[in-house]
Amino acid sequence: MPLIVQKYGGTSVGSIDRIRNVASRIKKLRDEGNQVVAVVSAMGGVTDKLIGMANELNDTPPERELDVLLSSGEQQSIALLSMALEGMGVPAASVTGRQAGIFTTGSHTRGRIDKIEPNMVHGFLDEGRVVIVAGFQGITEDGHIHTLGRGGSDLTAIAVAAAINADLCQILTDVDGVYTSDPRVVKDARKLPELSYDEMLEMASSGSKVMQSRSVEFAKKFGVVFEVRSSLNDNPGTIITEEHPDMEAVVIRGVSIERSQARVTVQNIPDDAKSAAQILGALSEAEINIDMIVANSSQDGRGRLSFTMHTNDLGRAQAALQPLLGPLNATVETEAGLAKLSTVGIGMRSHSGVAAKMFEALAEANIKTGMISTSEIKIAVTVEETQIEEAARVVHTAFKLESKPCA
Amino acid sequence: MPLIVQKYGGTSVGSIDRIRNVASRIKKLRDEGNQVVAVVSAMGGVTDKLIGMANELNDTPPERELDVLLSSGEQQSIALLSMALEGMGVPAASVTGRQAGIFTTGSHTRGRIDKIEPNMVHGFLDEGRVVIVAGFQGITEDGHIHTLGRGGSDLTAIAVAAAINADLCQILTDVDGVYTSDPRVVKDARKLPELSYDEMLEMASSGSKVMQSRSVEFAKKFGVVFEVRSSLNDNPGTIITEEHPDMEAVVIRGVSIERSQARVTVQNIPDDAKSAAQILGALSEAEINIDMIVANSSQDGRGRLSFTMHTNDLGRAQAALQPLLGPLNATVETEAGLAKLSTVGIGMRSHSGVAAKMFEALAEANIKTGMISTSEIKIAVTVEETQIEEAARVVHTAFKLESKPCA
Repeated sequence: MPLIVQKYGGTSVGSIDRIRNVASRIKKLRDEGNQVVAVVSAMGGVTDKLIGMANELNDTPPERELDVLLSSGEQQSIALLSMALEGMGVPAASVTGRQAGIFTTGSHTRGRIDKIEPNMVHGFLDEGRVVIVAGFQGITEDGHIHTLGRGGSDLTAIAVAAAINADLCQILTDVDGVYTSDPRVVKDARKLPELSYDEMLEMASSGSKVMQSRSVEFAKKFGVVFEVRSSLNDNPGTIITEEHPDMEAVVIRGVSIERSQARVTVQNIPDDAKSAAQILGALSEAEINIDMIVANSSQDGRGRLSFTMHTNDLGRAQAALQPLLGPLNATVETEAGLAKLSTVGIGMRSHSGVAAKMFEALAEANIKTGMISTSEIKIAVTVEETQIEEAARVVHTAFKLESKPCA
Repeated sequence: MPLIVQKYGGTSVGSIDRIRNVASRIKKLRDEGNQVVAVVSAMGGVTDKLIGMANELNDTPPERELDVLLSSGEQQSIALLSMALEGMGVPAASVTGRQAGIFTTGSHTRGRIDKIEPNMVHGFLDEGRVVIVAGFQGITEDGHIHTLGRGGSDLTAIAVAAAINADLCQILTDVDGVYTSDPRVVKDARKLPELSYDEMLEMASSGSKVMQSRSVEFAKKFGVVFEVRSSLNDNPGTIITEEHPDMEAVVIRGVSIERSQARVTVQNIPDDAKSAAQILGALSEAEINIDMIVANSSQDGRGRLSFTMHTNDLGRAQAALQPLLGPLNATVETEAGLAKLSTVGIGMRSHSGVAAKMFEALAEANIKTGMISTSEIKIAVTVEETQIEEAARVVHTAFKLESKPCA
């Protein structure tokens, strides 16, 4: 009997009616002859409410206690979903992160899954039950509760699928799958039937916020095939799997956009690794995530270092850099109102001219480009935020992403 | 350093402000040089809300899932209280029932504490922390969650106090202590400084609902001295401990009342143990708690069996008995609108005439009595519910309970 792991997010179980709806979907899947394990998040809104209460009592709530508090949210949703299933005549049982044997390392509020000992899950499956697993949580070897941070329930689903050797893992979400571009921006964006882990990783890190990178990385590491599909309809979604020869032969898989970007350039710095390390170290210490990094040197032995970040971090970044400017005899220049356009595809490895074609399309539309960064399967470029939608459309069209490629 | 276990109920932690207030009380106790372990219930109202959601999804929610659901309530309150303490500069840590090592047997929603392995509690105490323990919950050897049923948090507090060998266990509640009678009924009722376990047990089973009997029984079994006191002020409460010679030398400790009682009499039954067993068995199977039982036999070999119960159970009791009446050739007579008056005191063991004095007082006030039952330290009698308050007052006065006895 096929064994399927499904993951439902907080919106999908956000009310009594929605929990009932999820139960119906699971019942259908089981009636079709599958064993089902469902990983669920806390009911939508619950986590925010709990954080609000925590902040009322303590400006900086201890992270250990935050984990105890927040993990109660999934404990409620798994019990309620199990009750709904039982009410429909489907034998079900809930398991907390601890009961699912999800052991974590790392720190509170940012646990990392270390190993899974799914004895209780197997026991309930052997009894013919649907098993409902609390997402987002695990325990340390010492018995303390960890939550897994953003996207933690996706990670739980993929890790559980790996641990119980599931045939498929479905990430049920509020989108139909992964598209060649954001359908709200590019009208003829097309849902992709299949995608490689690497492409999904580059899409994720380029603003297609369907999933967090680390869940995709975990799936890649353990070879978990998963499908991103809608929790609202029965349409097939997008399968993310190992790259294989039958995969749609395309150069570019998709075009993703990320808004609210800012650029910071530190000018006139000593052109050596030590200065760059100091600058990047100061930003890292201030917990500012930087994205693209470009370094230029000039002939006089002085150089400049540019990087992008979310606009919200710009003020903190300037503050973090301030103490360095005097000693380095450097200056800072910033630019907000940017956005990032990324083209992603494993095909570009073997096809030259992708960058040329992309810049040609942008130039033809009079779109000025700024910083550029590339990986083996991605080319990213900054443009004015006001032009990002137009940029996505012209690049999408240039690579003919709207039409299914020929085999 | 004295080690004190405190228990705070759902009302005491029912809002952010109240949690803050409890944290202040704990801080004060700690500042006075005590080690503190606090057992807390779910925030008032949370449990009812969760049960409401459960019932929306399933008319008869599986009890295993109810336990998973409801135990999340204390998990939230322990985390929030710990955060509040940390916010006041008091090192604190929360532990769930599982983390406190509270192992249970019995069935879901009615777990019984089997043993406690408080390693994590000791660890946190050694670190100088206040430890906040989730009341009302434990786990089975197999790792399933149990709740402990009504009064479960009191039980947790007393069991934890026994396990960590605490110097004192304080049950913080919304009353000031145990009174000679209900102060709302008997104006000159007096707070008792001290009470024996046995007296507390008889008071509990006689309608003084300060605590459930099983918590008192547990305390008696393990010799845990505990104090019932108010969570709203700093008045000393009532200490419940082993009977000892210095205890206030009185015949009667208190007068308790229980309203909404009904009497059922099965008449004309064969005067043998088998018939009584059939009748009581049918009621037990219908899960009807009966209280007083009186049997009478007549000369013709037929007898009658009377018992009292809560008025709410009267209909179900009649339904449960119906199938037996034909085979036994018996009839049923019922009377609602009753109440029970109990006088309790270890002193009555060695003093005769207590019953006489009690009935004398009732007769003088023209109060008609019905069924009577006695134990070694209690005499209980039913009266018309309309007369119960007057009955309590005259008996209270007859035994001079309003004044502190001479040594």
